[in-house]
Amino acid sequence: MTPSTQPFAQWLVDRARHVEAVLDEQMPGADDGPARLHDAMRYAVLGGGKRVRAALVYAAGVACHAQAPSKAVDSSLDRAACAVELIHAYSLVHDDLPCMDNDVLRRGQPTVHVKYDEATAMLAGDALQPLAFELLAEMPIAPALVVQAIQLLARASGSQGMAGGQAIDLQSVGSALSRDELQTMHSMKTGAMLEASVALGGVVAGASSATRDALEGYAQAMGLAFQVVDDILDVTADSASLGKTPGKDAAENKPTYVSLLGLEAAREFAEALRQAALESLAPLGPQALRLRELADFIVLRDR
Amino acid sequence: MTPSTQPFAQWLVDRARHVEAVLDEQMPGADDGPARLHDAMRYAVLGGGKRVRAALVYAAGVACHAQAPSKAVDSSLDRAACAVELIHAYSLVHDDLPCMDNDVLRRGQPTVHVKYDEATAMLAGDALQPLAFELLAEMPIAPALVVQAIQLLARASGSQGMAGGQAIDLQSVGSALSRDELQTMHSMKTGAMLEASVALGGVVAGASSATRDALEGYAQAMGLAFQVVDDILDVTADSASLGKTPGKDAAENKPTYVSLLGLEAAREFAEALRQAALESLAPLGPQALRLRELADFIVLRDR
Repeated sequence: MTPSTQPFAQWLVDRARHVEAVLDEQMPGADDGPARLHDAMRYAVLGGGKRVRAALVYAAGVACHAQAPSKAVDSSLDRAACAVELIHAYSLVHDDLPCMDNDVLRRGQPTVHVKYDEATAMLAGDALQPLAFELLAEMPIAPALVVQAIQLLARASGSQGMAGGQAIDLQSVGSALSRDELQTMHSMKTGAMLEASVALGGVVAGASSATRDALEGYAQAMGLAFQVVDDILDVTADSASLGKTPGKDAAENKPTYVSLLGLEAAREFAEALRQAALESLAPLGPQALRLRELADFIVLRDR
Repeated sequence: MTPSTQPFAQWLVDRARHVEAVLDEQMPGADDGPARLHDAMRYAVLGGGKRVRAALVYAAGVACHAQAPSKAVDSSLDRAACAVELIHAYSLVHDDLPCMDNDVLRRGQPTVHVKYDEATAMLAGDALQPLAFELLAEMPIAPALVVQAIQLLARASGSQGMAGGQAIDLQSVGSALSRDELQTMHSMKTGAMLEASVALGGVVAGASSATRDALEGYAQAMGLAFQVVDDILDVTADSASLGKTPGKDAAENKPTYVSLLGLEAAREFAEALRQAALESLAPLGPQALRLRELADFIVLRDR
């Protein structure tokens, strides 16, 4: 991937379209076996979204190997970007089920269990997980790096990452979490996969140990900032710009950064995290442009 | 793993106990994060079962490397055995949920969603999947072999393997499947993971291409035999020896090998598959003893 000179907004749309095309190509179709299941998997994964996680993979990748782009790395970044989007998609499908959040709409469309049925939605989510690991296992880079990438994704999505965060979230409804507890829950539920996206870009592009550290500092700050801004948007945005029902968390008495800190302090916290993320990137120089722009995009989307 | 001279029944119990101990050690506990989720995961995985899949991993491993046992291979076989049991356990947890089979008992104990709740059961299953891939990714053997093992497990458990077979099974209730369709469904739903278990043992032990072919022939025959015998047991066994309600498939009008072929022809078919499996093992010589014994065990358990 040669560093592009596109304006950020155009780059982001371009990356989203690109990963959508790769997902479309990599996912099994109706002719490849269980047609209804494959339909449901494609419905769950394809059809848009900002693809922030995929963008983080690409941005981290370009920050590490802009001097020596290679086809193997580019194609591996594609697979890694698909993998994080597949895991994200599976988590949404299961999260929307009646036994979890019982949501009937996502991005204005019927959720998978509404469009198909509960059993198919569950199996579609179940089958998206191994597909993510399969795509990573097929990356045409050094097997030792492939193994590292798989470890990263497995840990980020498992019981001490995303799935664990969802479990804590479930039990937190109506309870008074401390700021530390809230932070732990979000760093697992949302932060772990955002951090893994950045780390995967670095691993695939063969980042040095110092570069990986810089990426990790950036990713930890951004993972948290993402959730703080989500909480702000939940109380400030209207339904149209949010793409989901605003005020839902507050109505369900879920603890949020806004309920805990107040709106203004939450905004200051998000801004401090953005600054911390940018400082972590300093050693990477101009190649980290897309990562800086993503930090601005994630934090400033509430303005 | 040195080839043992234990009688088969003792070897099988020993392997089941061993993999149970390794699972217990490898699985996160209540102190490692979300306590209720980790409890549910342990409840789903630990506490017995014949561990046929783990036994297939070990039996294939010992068939390939009995001359030169190594600690790295032994510890990798342990991880591979855990991985197939984790995937099997997750599939049972999700299968038992109300939106699937709605089973309240498994091995005489309350199913996970009865003991905990539906959301926790779903998340426990979700989190067992990445744990399986994480254990494979940690195997201390050549990274290229680790990657092959992960590909095997991902394909066997995904939409063109186990999860896909479950989707086809769901849609087959009350419909008249042909023998070919029934075979496709079972080879995906049950066969794929049994075959992967055998193949994993071979990959981890560094099997040659010829040995892998022999293992594959064995595994395909045994994967199918396993289901044919399951169908036979569903009509011939009593509840106590079966560990679940007999006649359930027939009552739900699910197509089975018995309903399709009749009891006697189903028994002949299982025996023919056992013979085919044993023939495939011929090139492996005496080291394949445990695989031969497992073939007998799987097919002759209906007598």
